[in-house]
Amino acid sequence: QRFEGAWKVIRDELVEHLASEGMPSDAIEWFGKNLDYNVPGGKLNRGMSVVDSVEILKARELTEEEYFQAAVLGWCIELLQAYFLVSDDMMDGSITRRDQPCWYRVQSVGNIAINDSFMLEAAIYWLLKKHFRQSPCYVDLLEVFHETTYQTEMGQLIDLITAPEDHVDLSKFSLKKHRLIVVYKTAFYSFYLPVACAMYLCGVPPSYIPSTEPFSSTKPVHPYDVAKAILVPLGEYFQVQDDFLDYSAPPEVLGKIGTDIIDNKCSWVINTALSLVTPEQRKVLDENYGKKGKEEEQRVKDVFKAVGIEQKYAEYEQNAYETLTKLISEVPEGTKETELKQEVFTSFLNKIYKRTK
Amino acid sequence: QRFEGAWKVIRDELVEHLASEGMPSDAIEWFGKNLDYNVPGGKLNRGMSVVDSVEILKARELTEEEYFQAAVLGWCIELLQAYFLVSDDMMDGSITRRDQPCWYRVQSVGNIAINDSFMLEAAIYWLLKKHFRQSPCYVDLLEVFHETTYQTEMGQLIDLITAPEDHVDLSKFSLKKHRLIVVYKTAFYSFYLPVACAMYLCGVPPSYIPSTEPFSSTKPVHPYDVAKAILVPLGEYFQVQDDFLDYSAPPEVLGKIGTDIIDNKCSWVINTALSLVTPEQRKVLDENYGKKGKEEEQRVKDVFKAVGIEQKYAEYEQNAYETLTKLISEVPEGTKETELKQEVFTSFLNKIYKRTK
Ligand SMILES: [Mg+2]
Ligand SMILES: [Mg+2]
Ligand SMILES: [Mg+2]
Ligand SMILES: [Mg+2]
Ligand SMILES: [Mg+2]
Ligand SMILES: [Mg+2]
Repeated sequence: QRFEGAWKVIRDELVEHLASEGMPSDAIEWFGKNLDYNVPGGKLNRGMSVVDSVEILKARELTEEEYFQAAVLGWCIELLQAYFLVSDDMMDGSITRRDQPCWYRVQSVGNIAINDSFMLEAAIYWLLKKHFRQSPCYVDLLEVFHETTYQTEMGQLIDLITAPEDHVDLSKFSLKKHRLIVVYKTAFYSFYLPVACAMYLCGVPPSYIPSTEPFSSTKPVHPYDVAKAILVPLGEYFQVQDDFLDYSAPPEVLGKIGTDIIDNKCSWVINTALSLVTPEQRKVLDENYGKKGKEEEQRVKDVFKAVGIEQKYAEYEQNAYETLTKLISEVPEGTKETELKQEVFTSFLNKIYKRTK
Repeated sequence: QRFEGAWKVIRDELVEHLASEGMPSDAIEWFGKNLDYNVPGGKLNRGMSVVDSVEILKARELTEEEYFQAAVLGWCIELLQAYFLVSDDMMDGSITRRDQPCWYRVQSVGNIAINDSFMLEAAIYWLLKKHFRQSPCYVDLLEVFHETTYQTEMGQLIDLITAPEDHVDLSKFSLKKHRLIVVYKTAFYSFYLPVACAMYLCGVPPSYIPSTEPFSSTKPVHPYDVAKAILVPLGEYFQVQDDFLDYSAPPEVLGKIGTDIIDNKCSWVINTALSLVTPEQRKVLDENYGKKGKEEEQRVKDVFKAVGIEQKYAEYEQNAYETLTKLISEVPEGTKETELKQEVFTSFLNKIYKRTK
């Protein structure tokens, strides 16, 4: 596939660079394995949505060079994600990721994975310099990667101290806390960042008067704020789905076995249940959530069912869909490639709405 | 002290920023502790040398604002160092740092220290944006931090795979490998980065014709290349001293007990010894280096002594000093603050030459 073809080029550039710095062959080989093991192999949704968004903004097929530039940004987001996942798996003590052992559990890697994750991040800025140094959007790209990285790390911090795997304290949980974790840990880098990258690449300015009726007579649009105001709740909706599917989806559909209950995750499901339980049900949750046994997990699931979580989720999803649809319908559209299009957002929403995996 | 006074301001800006993002109070408090525990408390040589270098380039005392700007860059380097040290201690399984338990060994921190180290790095770019967004050197500062970070991580990678604490293989060691590790892991961020930051802050351009005789008629100077060509070998010399003192300095002078031999460190001492040993001595090193016992350590020390390491070090130091002095004497000087001064480099060399701790 085309997007994965770009990775081959980018991967070789990164490895070649280490060679050109005079690194020993075992270090070059190690870095190549780090890249191969951790960067491709995911669903690539984040990376590919840069390319998709650029195509929508330009409203045409991309030239070879335009495609590659968008793909570099897409792979920078995949590198950022790899940086987060390699380290998250170490902090969570996870066993597998994408159907293979987590990188830190690979023979002879161990804690070297910490430095390996650092190098995945550093590679982003090396690529941005190589491919965008002369571009007018260079500083904007650097800043949006910096800011999003920091936000994600803040979300990770809240998550880590709110829901440590080995110490259950449901009094720390709340739907408000859940929202904060989800927005910072996931929504900014997974939803806002790809679209912002595409917008910067297309030269979308910080503000403009739309060129097209009925918006052209209205006040200035701040397109990055508009994008954030839609993509952050959209990312929140996506993560709520993720949490609900972890509880409800059959493993053969989901492609993995949900472990949020036994892992003491601060998920939408437990937080919603906590807002609905009787004191007796609360006691069951306090005593069984985050425990390793199958029976404890089943008791938690029974409470989820008893409080009517399926119905609550159906309501949540309907409400999220309608709210987002309305927000998107209010986006001022323009015909230029430097103006927002509603399709940038509907394409995300349609991929997500009522997904089952 | 003035430099530490600037930290109080910077530290509060960073913590305030998290509060302004709506982070929960336990997360804000955690981040404050992360900063307090890991950033100040070292020797601050790297950070203060930004300020010192700016004073030398400007050849006068700094205004309050100039001082603070230089100090922000100095503290950004201390943040970078903290990022490296928190993670290095985890990867090395170290017990103490700066006479206190390593951060990851503090109660309830553990592997959260990985994300904490990430946040120390991310804080750098938030500070650079806050304080230098409007400055002509903003992009240069971003790039020199990116590049130096990547170089340090490359050096860390070579070090980690060449000298893992739990697997001794002296055939991987060599003076060439030692040089590569030292230059990448230490010299760039400890010596080149502070001076480059000072130069960018003073507006030193990428190249110029010196304004002062006898250099003014000569070809263009590339001052960042000149600085690197001196500061990288200077950093190498500094690390060789560090390695030699770890072996030779009395603990009461050094302020700590050297552990390079028992930790299987790829130090200048072992590499120099390896280049001098008889086959019998080599066998002793192979069998005793990197072992945990006092007796094994003593056998290694006996070989070091037998090959005449003290004399070799005295020769190395004399040679390094003379080579650096000559290099510095060739630096074209100018009187403007945008031109190099030899004193930038001699001030480093004089602090280091014949140090005993
Ligand atoms: Mg995880
Ligand atoms: Mg996690
Ligand atoms: Mg999940
Ligand atoms: Mg160490
Ligand atoms: Mg180390
Ligand atoms: Mg040392």
